[in-house]
Amino acid sequence: MERIYIDELKKHVGKTVTIAGWVDVRRDHGKLIFLDLRDKSGKVQMVALPNHTEAHALAHKLRSEWVIAVTGNVNERPAKMVNADDVNGSIEIEITEIAILSEAEELPFALDGELNLDTLLDHRPLTLRRSREQDIFKVQEVIAKTYRSSLSKQGFTEFQAPALVGEDAEGGANVFKVSYFNEKDAYLATSPQFYKQIMVGVYERAFTITKVFRAEKHSTSRHLNEYSSLDAEMGFIVDHQSIMKVLTDVLKEVATVLTEEHAQTFEKMGVTFPKLPDEIPHMKLREAQQLIKHETGENCTHEPDLEPEHERWLCTYAKEKLESDFIFITHYPVSKRPFYTYEDEEDPGFTKSFDLLFRGLEIATGGQRVHDYKMLIEKLNGRGLNPDMFSFYLEAFKYGMPPHGGWGMGLERLTARFLNLDNVREAALFPRDINRIDTLLSQ
Amino acid sequence: MERIYIDELKKHVGKTVTIAGWVDVRRDHGKLIFLDLRDKSGKVQMVALPNHTEAHALAHKLRSEWVIAVTGNVNERPAKMVNADDVNGSIEIEITEIAILSEAEELPFALDGELNLDTLLDHRPLTLRRSREQDIFKVQEVIAKTYRSSLSKQGFTEFQAPALVGEDAEGGANVFKVSYFNEKDAYLATSPQFYKQIMVGVYERAFTITKVFRAEKHSTSRHLNEYSSLDAEMGFIVDHQSIMKVLTDVLKEVATVLTEEHAQTFEKMGVTFPKLPDEIPHMKLREAQQLIKHETGENCTHEPDLEPEHERWLCTYAKEKLESDFIFITHYPVSKRPFYTYEDEEDPGFTKSFDLLFRGLEIATGGQRVHDYKMLIEKLNGRGLNPDMFSFYLEAFKYGMPPHGGWGMGLERLTARFLNLDNVREAALFPRDINRIDTLLSQ
Repeated sequence: MERIYIDELKKHVGKTVTIAGWVDVRRDHGKLIFLDLRDKSGKVQMVALPNHTEAHALAHKLRSEWVIAVTGNVNERPAKMVNADDVNGSIEIEITEIAILSEAEELPFALDGELNLDTLLDHRPLTLRRSREQDIFKVQEVIAKTYRSSLSKQGFTEFQAPALVGEDAEGGANVFKVSYFNEKDAYLATSPQFYKQIMVGVYERAFTITKVFRAEKHSTSRHLNEYSSLDAEMGFIVDHQSIMKVLTDVLKEVATVLTEEHAQTFEKMGVTFPKLPDEIPHMKLREAQQLIKHETGENCTHEPDLEPEHERWLCTYAKEKLESDFIFITHYPVSKRPFYTYEDEEDPGFTKSFDLLFRGLEIATGGQRVHDYKMLIEKLNGRGLNPDMFSFYLEAFKYGMPPHGGWGMGLERLTARFLNLDNVREAALFPRDINRIDTLLSQ
Repeated sequence: MERIYIDELKKHVGKTVTIAGWVDVRRDHGKLIFLDLRDKSGKVQMVALPNHTEAHALAHKLRSEWVIAVTGNVNERPAKMVNADDVNGSIEIEITEIAILSEAEELPFALDGELNLDTLLDHRPLTLRRSREQDIFKVQEVIAKTYRSSLSKQGFTEFQAPALVGEDAEGGANVFKVSYFNEKDAYLATSPQFYKQIMVGVYERAFTITKVFRAEKHSTSRHLNEYSSLDAEMGFIVDHQSIMKVLTDVLKEVATVLTEEHAQTFEKMGVTFPKLPDEIPHMKLREAQQLIKHETGENCTHEPDLEPEHERWLCTYAKEKLESDFIFITHYPVSKRPFYTYEDEEDPGFTKSFDLLFRGLEIATGGQRVHDYKMLIEKLNGRGLNPDMFSFYLEAFKYGMPPHGGWGMGLERLTARFLNLDNVREAALFPRDINRIDTLLSQ
C-alpha cells in the first residue's frame, strides 16, 4: 500500500492507510501501547491493541526514533478523547501492521525540553529533529526564499559568487588561508564584495546568497566563522538611501511572509513579530552618539563605531520612541570603512554607508561605493594598498561603472533576531567556531 | 526626471523620457551620431543631432562602455528605417541631454564576435557584459531557480550546507586544506553528502545548492576546482529508481521553463532543446559495456567505470536509438563507490547507484545509501576507515534513519550541456582551476 503523509490522514477517516516515520513517544496503558508517529508533515497518535498479536508484539519493542511503516485504520476518537490543541487530535490510528525500517539506540537525553547550547550542538544530528529546531530552520528557509523572490521581482539577477579567492587583498587578519596548487596559497572569501560589484556591470542589479568566512578569534554569541551572506548590489542609484529603501522593502516582504506562514512558530516560541515601519528610522552615527550622551550621560561621541551595548540601547530607543525594531545608522567615518566606500561630498570625512540594527544587533552593512576608476585608485593608494593586487576588480571600473551600492546581511543573525534566539549558533545548522567544527576541536 | 528602463520605451512614443546605461556602439553618419544604449532590460538606438549643441558635443566624446543618462524624445522611426528583427527596431531616441556618469577606457578588443577562452576569462569583468555571457548566466539562474521551486513543490526543505569540514574523512587526495585556529587544519567540503543525509533525519527530504571543492589537478574541459553542487536527499524510498524518478521530474521542469523563457537564447546560440522523455532510459554499467562491445567491437567490459569516450558514445546511442539526450547508467561496482553506497542484494558486488549522462558528459551521480547503523560501521571497517572519525555523521544512524538516497549534480556542467558549451569554464562566472583564480596564477 502506498504511503501517505500524516497531514493527509483526516481525509481518510474510516479507511486503512499506510504511514511511515519516526516514533516520537511511546506510552503504555496496561496492554494498550500508544505511539506518536512523526513524519515530515506532522504527528499522529497510534494505538496497538492486543488483538493484533503480531503488531502488538512489535510495538512492544519500539522506542523513540525507531523508524517504522505502519498500516492501520484511521479512526475518529471518542468525543472525550479529542485533543482540540492538536492538528490530528480528533483521530487515532489503530495499528494492524508494523514494519521496522530502522532501529534506534536509547536516546542520550530527552529530546523535548530545554537543552544547553553544548548539548544542542554536540548532538546536532539528533537535536535538529526537535520540533523547535525544525521550526528555526524552516523559518530560515522562508527568509532565504523570500529574499530571493523579493529581489527577483525587483529586477535583480541571482549569481554564484566564488568562495576561493586569490589574494588576501585587503590585508585583513581575519582571512583563512587555503593550500592551493603548486605551493600557492588561496584564501576563503570574507565577502562577495568585489564580485557583486563586477556583476553590476553585467546586470545592473545582482544578488547572491553565499558562504563567507571570517577567521576572527571571537567566541561571542553573535559571531560565526562561516556564515551565509545575503548580498545584493545595484546600479544607477542616487545615494545610500536608494539602497536602504530596497533593503527595507525586502525585509518587509520577509516579515509579511513569516507572518503568513509562521505565526504559529512565533507563538510557540513566545516571540512577537517585529515592528517594521514602511520607512525604517535612520540617523547619522554622530547623531546616535549625541543621543546616547544626552539620554544616558555616557560619552561615546569620539568613538568611530558603536559598542554592542550602544547598539542595544539604540534598538530599545527605536522600539520605544520610533515604533521600530529596526534602525539604520549612517555616516560612519571614512577611516572605519573599506577603501571602496563612497565619501559624502556634503559631509567630508564621513561615508554614505550604513549599518542596520535589529533587536540589539547589527544584521546588515552597506552603502554607496566609489564607481570612478581614478578615484578608486587614489583610495587604494591612500591606504597603502597596491592597485596591481586589485587588477581584476579594477577592470570593471576601467570600462565604465554607474553609481552603485549594496549590502551584506547575515542569514543566521537575521534568523536569530527574528526568533529572539540568544546565540547565533542556534540559527546555524552546523556552526563553525574557534572551538567547533561539528564536534569540539581538541585544544 | 525619473529613469525608465529601455524595455518600457515603446509605451512612451512621442514623449520625453530619461534612460540610462552603457554605450554599446557608436556610429557616426556625417554630423549625426548614432549611439546604442544598453541597460539591464535591453538596447535602443539613439541619435544626437547637431541642433542640440551641448548634447551633440558630449555625444562626440562617448565611446563603448561609457555610462550615461540620456534625456530625449521617443520617436517612431520612418517606415524604411524600421528594423523588424530588433525589439526596439521601430523607435529611436532623439537625444536632448546627456549626463556622463562614468567614462571608460578604450576596449582592449571588440566585445562582440568570437573570443578565445583565455581572453574570455582574463577579462571576465568586461567579457561578462557580452550578450552571449549575459544569456549563459541568465540560463544558469533559471536552472537554479527551477531546481529550487521544483523540489520545494515536491516537499523538499532547502538547507545551508557547510563549506568548512573538520576531517578529511574519506582520505581522498582531492581535498583542499585550510589553516584553521590553534595550528589546526580544516578542509573544504568535497560534497555536502554527510550533511544532507543528516537532514533526511530532520525533514525527510532536503536539498541544497552549495559550493564544493575538488583539489584535483585535472585541467580538462569538464573539471572545475570549485563548483556549485545541486544536491538533494530523500527518505522512505523503495530504491535508487525512486531517486531517479524525482531527478527526472526536476530536469523536465527545468527544461520546460527554459523552453518557455529562453527559446530565443537557444536560437541565438544555435542550440536545440534536448530530448528528455518522461522516463529517461537506464541500463546497468555491464549492459552498457556489452552494448559498446557489441556495437563498436571495443571491449571495456572489465573496466569498473566508463571512459569519457564511452560516455559520449552512450549518449549518441541514447539520442539516436532511445530518443533521449539523457541516459542513466546504474549498478557501478561496490569497489568504485563510496562506503555509504547501498549494495544491491539481488546483484551482489554492485550498487544501487547511478550516473546520469547528458550530451556526452556525466552531470549527476547518486544512489541509495546504507541506512542501517551496524552495516555502516561494517562498511567503514571493511575499507579500513576508522568509525571514530565519522562519529558526528554516524549519530544520525544511531538514532534511526529510513531507507534513503539522493544525488549531486554540477550546476556549471548542467548549464554547459544545455547550451552545448565546449568548456565548463564558460558556464562558471569566475572559474577556479589549477592555473587560475580570476587572474592566471604565476607558476
